[in-house]
Amino acid sequence: MPGFSFEIVASDARARAGVFRTPRGTVETPVFMPVGTLASVKALDPDDLRTMHAEIVLANAYHLHLRPGDSLVRDLGGLHRFMAWDGPILTDSGGFQVFSLASLNSVTEDGVEFRSHIDGSARAFTPELVMQIETNLGADVIMQFDHVIPGQSDHAAAKDASERSVRWLARCRTEFARLRAVDDAPKQTLFPIIQGGIHQDLRRSAASAIRGSGDWDGFAIGGLSVGEGKDSMYAMLDVCDDALPREQPRYLMGVGFPEDLLAGVARGIDLFDCVAPTRMGRNGTAFTGGGRLNLKNAGHRADPRPLDVECGCVACRKFSRSYIRHLVTADEILGLRLLSLHNVHFLIALMRRAREAIRAGTFDAWSRDWLARYHSTSVNE
Amino acid sequence: MPGFSFEIVASDARARAGVFRTPRGTVETPVFMPVGTLASVKALDPDDLRTMHAEIVLANAYHLHLRPGDSLVRDLGGLHRFMAWDGPILTDSGGFQVFSLASLNSVTEDGVEFRSHIDGSARAFTPELVMQIETNLGADVIMQFDHVIPGQSDHAAAKDASERSVRWLARCRTEFARLRAVDDAPKQTLFPIIQGGIHQDLRRSAASAIRGSGDWDGFAIGGLSVGEGKDSMYAMLDVCDDALPREQPRYLMGVGFPEDLLAGVARGIDLFDCVAPTRMGRNGTAFTGGGRLNLKNAGHRADPRPLDVECGCVACRKFSRSYIRHLVTADEILGLRLLSLHNVHFLIALMRRAREAIRAGTFDAWSRDWLARYHSTSVNE
Repeated sequence: MPGFSFEIVASDARARAGVFRTPRGTVETPVFMPVGTLASVKALDPDDLRTMHAEIVLANAYHLHLRPGDSLVRDLGGLHRFMAWDGPILTDSGGFQVFSLASLNSVTEDGVEFRSHIDGSARAFTPELVMQIETNLGADVIMQFDHVIPGQSDHAAAKDASERSVRWLARCRTEFARLRAVDDAPKQTLFPIIQGGIHQDLRRSAASAIRGSGDWDGFAIGGLSVGEGKDSMYAMLDVCDDALPREQPRYLMGVGFPEDLLAGVARGIDLFDCVAPTRMGRNGTAFTGGGRLNLKNAGHRADPRPLDVECGCVACRKFSRSYIRHLVTADEILGLRLLSLHNVHFLIALMRRAREAIRAGTFDAWSRDWLARYHSTSVNE
Repeated sequence: MPGFSFEIVASDARARAGVFRTPRGTVETPVFMPVGTLASVKALDPDDLRTMHAEIVLANAYHLHLRPGDSLVRDLGGLHRFMAWDGPILTDSGGFQVFSLASLNSVTEDGVEFRSHIDGSARAFTPELVMQIETNLGADVIMQFDHVIPGQSDHAAAKDASERSVRWLARCRTEFARLRAVDDAPKQTLFPIIQGGIHQDLRRSAASAIRGSGDWDGFAIGGLSVGEGKDSMYAMLDVCDDALPREQPRYLMGVGFPEDLLAGVARGIDLFDCVAPTRMGRNGTAFTGGGRLNLKNAGHRADPRPLDVECGCVACRKFSRSYIRHLVTADEILGLRLLSLHNVHFLIALMRRAREAIRAGTFDAWSRDWLARYHSTSVNE
């Protein structure tokens, strides 16, 4: 079984086109990774994901630990078999969820005590337990347990959380190594997460400490797109681009609006994920090359055009805006399914086109043109 | 463009295997027709329907008149294009809905006044308006507007409604003929509906009056499975089997549980429809050869088996009961989609097997064996 590797096949300024190889398949970067929080990309199935050329999907350790339980998933053959997706999977550690979704009780050096958002039951996560959970789930790429703080936290709070995340990484690494010693341990790689809020020095220190603590197959940047301004986010990406080795993939966590994807690619990011395309789809909104469409607007009532005339997804090849608006208005499940499908397809296709532009050495111009049209909304008005 | 015809290719006692030919394709009978009330078979898309070998689907004139409007559907190219289903479609007239779902204001010889179940707006249906709606929608088979009464209505009320339905059929026929004179009128056939509650003489009189009023490409039996006992329903089917010509297809409206399908086939029924498979799917229940499964039951939590080991649907080929239970428990859309898909596939496949048994001359024995296993629940306990 081959391991993990990353190869940069083309660069254009700081943007990169690469190939991330995993034991379960190859991921061409830059790439958008659909989010299947509870082992299902909401409203879609694995065949939908293959049809839209998704190459890697996410799932979430916090959610799957609570429901249906990571031990159960392990007993049923692991996450790939459970959700019938045989390609690469990445699991997030639950760091973000215990600090946002759950009711937090306390954070100590040992770990986090919180209450389940489902039934209020008392729970505790430590770096060691999270490694056990993610090993049980058996994803290909697993994330360290990290300390996540609000986007605009002050320097002292951000420093505390960033440094704790580095210390927790060391514990994750030790436990991860211990769990590898078991005979049938899944072949996985552990990604560290750089925290530090909107403070350049903290991001730089964290990147340096993580680089010095071992060899990693990739690096994640966490704690962005959580309420800070765009300029702050871009400044942090610039720092991380400078502070991280160019030879490994960089994963910008939880960022997935089209304009943010392009800004990230321009700053050397390779991997992205976000619930936005499925969440917006369930709310009746579609991404298009001409901007966002709200299908609830009466203006779409009799519109025979597809959501996006340039999109090749199933929703755009077969159905009109009028039909999809009818489904959304009537609360038909097919409506939110078609919009979710289109939105995820749209982001995957956008990253494929970014990759082509990087290979052609035209990323900057292509990206500017794309954004100008996206913000013009001329297509849809 | 060919017209409508029916050919019986095999008989076994009163059960028949036939071919119902329509301008948009051939339907092998007996057949279960999935219901797409609002121009969408709930949670499924046309590719799903083709994969499970659905040959004809339903939509509903009442619902589509209210939302999005039958004129809009016509302007967008008709129901087939609107919902991206190029096979045969049958529209129900709304008779059942105005007497059940809407708030009824009055029934006169002219028609029915009622309030929309969506916004309470005042509406009126006449046989003529319903023909206009169904012509706008452009389905292949359209149903007459009928007077539907509660299942256990007394003889006087049932006689009144049954005879009114026959008079309304004549008006439907006249308006249907008038609408055919338009240049681009869709190629459609109008099916009469036999009403009469649970009263044998009324069913017989209605069948006789309808037969005497013209040539029909098929006959529907309405107002059953609406609260009367099974014995009453079977007695009415026996009467209708005797009173209807054997050369045309018979459609038993709104009946779709497995045991009722087999009982109907045994009594000479060819076409069935019901919302049960999708509604039950959304509620977490699956049909299986060994009886019904409620996926909400904790007993399925760690069960690696498919819903039905003998089923070839996508849900059964790829996913475990454990995974589907997880999805249902977590309110994931994929869960109700997989259950809806399985249940509709299950009924379509059941009718295909019934057809094979009729052709082999073994329907009665096969049907008994199938029901014994279905009621034993041995497979799933």
